[in-house]
Amino acid sequence: MQRRLLQTASYSLLKRHRCVGSGFARLNVLPVASYSTKTVPLTAETYSKKVQRDPKYKQLDEKDLQFFKSVLPENSIITDEDDLLFYNEDWMRKYRGQSKLVLKPKTTEEVAQILKYCNENKLAVVPQGGNTGLVGGSNPVFDEIIISLSSMNKIRSFDPVSGILKADAGVILETADQYLAEQGYIFPLDLGAKGSCHIGGNVACNAGGLRLLRYGSLHGSVLGLEAVLPDGTIYNSMHSLRKDNTGYDLKQLFIGSEGTLGIITGISILCPSRPQAQNVAFLAVSSYEAVQKVFVQARRELQEILSAFEFMDNTSQKLTAKHLGLDHPIESGDFPFYVLIETSGSSKEHDDEKLETFLGNAMEEGLVEDGIIAQDEAQIQSLWSWRESIPEATTIGGGVYKYDVSIPLADLYGLVEDVNARLNDAGIASLEDESKPVLAALGYGHIGDGNLHLNVSVRKYSPEVESVLEPYVYEWIADKHGSISAEHGLGFQKKNYIGYSKNDTEIKLIKEIKNHYDPNGIMNPYKYI
Amino acid sequence: MQRRLLQTASYSLLKRHRCVGSGFARLNVLPVASYSTKTVPLTAETYSKKVQRDPKYKQLDEKDLQFFKSVLPENSIITDEDDLLFYNEDWMRKYRGQSKLVLKPKTTEEVAQILKYCNENKLAVVPQGGNTGLVGGSNPVFDEIIISLSSMNKIRSFDPVSGILKADAGVILETADQYLAEQGYIFPLDLGAKGSCHIGGNVACNAGGLRLLRYGSLHGSVLGLEAVLPDGTIYNSMHSLRKDNTGYDLKQLFIGSEGTLGIITGISILCPSRPQAQNVAFLAVSSYEAVQKVFVQARRELQEILSAFEFMDNTSQKLTAKHLGLDHPIESGDFPFYVLIETSGSSKEHDDEKLETFLGNAMEEGLVEDGIIAQDEAQIQSLWSWRESIPEATTIGGGVYKYDVSIPLADLYGLVEDVNARLNDAGIASLEDESKPVLAALGYGHIGDGNLHLNVSVRKYSPEVESVLEPYVYEWIADKHGSISAEHGLGFQKKNYIGYSKNDTEIKLIKEIKNHYDPNGIMNPYKYI
Repeated sequence: MQRRLLQTASYSLLKRHRCVGSGFARLNVLPVASYSTKTVPLTAETYSKKVQRDPKYKQLDEKDLQFFKSVLPENSIITDEDDLLFYNEDWMRKYRGQSKLVLKPKTTEEVAQILKYCNENKLAVVPQGGNTGLVGGSNPVFDEIIISLSSMNKIRSFDPVSGILKADAGVILETADQYLAEQGYIFPLDLGAKGSCHIGGNVACNAGGLRLLRYGSLHGSVLGLEAVLPDGTIYNSMHSLRKDNTGYDLKQLFIGSEGTLGIITGISILCPSRPQAQNVAFLAVSSYEAVQKVFVQARRELQEILSAFEFMDNTSQKLTAKHLGLDHPIESGDFPFYVLIETSGSSKEHDDEKLETFLGNAMEEGLVEDGIIAQDEAQIQSLWSWRESIPEATTIGGGVYKYDVSIPLADLYGLVEDVNARLNDAGIASLEDESKPVLAALGYGHIGDGNLHLNVSVRKYSPEVESVLEPYVYEWIADKHGSISAEHGLGFQKKNYIGYSKNDTEIKLIKEIKNHYDPNGIMNPYKYI
Repeated sequence: MQRRLLQTASYSLLKRHRCVGSGFARLNVLPVASYSTKTVPLTAETYSKKVQRDPKYKQLDEKDLQFFKSVLPENSIITDEDDLLFYNEDWMRKYRGQSKLVLKPKTTEEVAQILKYCNENKLAVVPQGGNTGLVGGSNPVFDEIIISLSSMNKIRSFDPVSGILKADAGVILETADQYLAEQGYIFPLDLGAKGSCHIGGNVACNAGGLRLLRYGSLHGSVLGLEAVLPDGTIYNSMHSLRKDNTGYDLKQLFIGSEGTLGIITGISILCPSRPQAQNVAFLAVSSYEAVQKVFVQARRELQEILSAFEFMDNTSQKLTAKHLGLDHPIESGDFPFYVLIETSGSSKEHDDEKLETFLGNAMEEGLVEDGIIAQDEAQIQSLWSWRESIPEATTIGGGVYKYDVSIPLADLYGLVEDVNARLNDAGIASLEDESKPVLAALGYGHIGDGNLHLNVSVRKYSPEVESVLEPYVYEWIADKHGSISAEHGLGFQKKNYIGYSKNDTEIKLIKEIKNHYDPNGIMNPYKYI
């Protein structure tokens, strides 16, 4: 099939891109700073005013250990302090718990035995997937026992006619997707942390990611679940039917429950056919107004083939260039905004034609200043890396405050501008001056979903910076009727802020459900609600 | 844009179709038999062995009526026996309740006042939308008070940038879709009853319909809900954010709860862009195996533009021809199966090309015997009527037993064959012999969703016929790990059969939720669970 090249004069088509994809940065568990050089302060100390250990929880003793040893083999139990660190800390290196025990069950029955014992003995637990969360939700705050799903990592079955995958919760997202690729299917979720995160953790956090625009939310694509309730009950609801209207859809409560109702041990999920053709265009845009116009036009003209519409501001690209050590793919200048558009379809020829018509129109109308289209898979990966490397790039100075929010489109970028103004007013931000605690606030995210990632890149975490940001950011969002957590969840970070997004009745009903399923409160305490 | 015609010799292209669309049959509230000539037996009498009135519910008295008159104006209260009949009976004329009172509130606050009173006084209620349900779920069994949502029928708001619609529960589906059409959007649900059913009822029943294949389930597209709980609490969760991970997604419990947890009064829903191009092909296929192969091929080759894949068996089309009084659009013979394929996309030229390539391949491989493609909107409507008129056509003899089930694709049509064999063995079925109670079992439905509509067309409802069908049908489905209700719900008909699709733990947890929200059991009793 012949690739027709767009002939618009001002359009620079990428021929040989410098950075080839395969080696490119995915979000990994460890950020820039290395383990040995810096100790993450204990969450219990950093937030001593906010949270104290609840004495109702039992402290782990030898008898408890004996019980766990009767359930699990020795290599599924971690008690060594150095080994525990990996599980106690989050990847942003913002939170550190003090758990003395990690359990790695291999079967649902083992999870059930463990939870039943913990519930009866009031031992608090934290379920942990790939430990890639961004709100401290999967790390202990005090001495909670960590139950890691990493040893439950089997694909259970796949039906190539219906496209339904059944798998253990601990399967890594990328592994699941690679398995599906061989069958001509795709996992209906993709995100930067795919190389580490678990599909069970994705469901527990209702992850959104890069292609929600196309494949919808997990509330629609998850068909069944297996979960263990705090009392050890195994809720086996691993259905594989696209339609099933027999009773309340209880599995939905677990989607986005962040390990506070039980532990998800298996999922059944509907996977779409893998697109036969894919295109990625990277565009330079001169204003946020133009970004919105390009989006509305893309949705109209690319409709059924549009699979991602991501935007990035100038600062995010500056930090990413520094992090990757590369020149930006758009060489003709420094632009306020960049947009990544991906199309996925069944005919390369048709998709090329639609994309080129769309881009031609957008340039003619002056919405797009410059842009490139990837010419092969390596270039597709390379362009995506300029979006997917941002989370790592923002930690370049040492740390990052992450706010993942939903805001009506027209107002969305205003939050980044207002936060930067506020940081500058406080005199605490500078990209160059290393004595300032903050580098800058920057924004990127999924325009198609009204989802902004506001990142405040810092040289160190400090209460001073935090007090400039919070509750200001939450108040700003509540004022626009947005959500303080679009896809990252509440976790530890946002536990006290749910009132900015939910009313009193909603919060009351949520608390009732928590008490209904976990009356002893052993599941992931100090978080969520 | 030039329409390229497929030149395959054996392919009869529809040029001027006899039946033009606009006047065509939609599923209406009243079936063939007219009201005056035949009285539907009381549900309480037909099923006297299965269900008795629960004495814990108070009987309506004058004091109650006085209260309702203090809340609602006179024209929102129905007590006249003839007027009550419309609300007491279902459209299949299978169920008839004995309610003495219909209330038609206009506001959420009125609903709250009514429910609070009923809950305090243990008056049982039945919420009712368009009364188009197929399992007796929206009609009273005894003297429950009917709360009709038909006076809550306002569009509240629509955002043309995000495509988010907010509306009262009582808006008729077709009205909502027509409103959206003017804005370039489409309601993400379509079904035969669209001219009568309410969007709130659709959500309460988690309706699936004709385009779930393309737009996914309501669990994915409903973004927010407003509902009144039995105690009168207004659960205002009318969010309009595509992503919001702040707390358990409680609205999901109401989707598919069939009025047993509370009354949905408003919905917020994400609507896709209305496709700019649409094609419909109607194909004749010689075996069920070939139907499956055509489906797999259609999903692969038409992928992102495939918006419906419906199949119909020979008997369903024979009855429909009789009902419509028309010759079948495929004139070249009598075929065992028919398939309707719809594509929706942004480029007519591209979609035509994809569809024609697909059909050419399918014919070349001998999967398709004959077929037609609609040439204009009227023909599209006309072809759809051969699918959408089936539900009405099946009542041609007087009544119909409807089973709406999910079964893995390979086994799906086997159920129709086995039921027909069983009816013939019992000597109770004949299309011609009017002395037999049954005409025939027939099958049609949404292959793309693994959803079969097994309809047993009867001349009269009788316990004899029922005993041949049940629990046989449910056992057959359980044996294949299917669902006894794909999209119609449990209602009155399937209340006792949930155990064929859900295990004991699931049922226990479902009952707990019911008791949690409706401890007095006033919401739609004798049904669901």
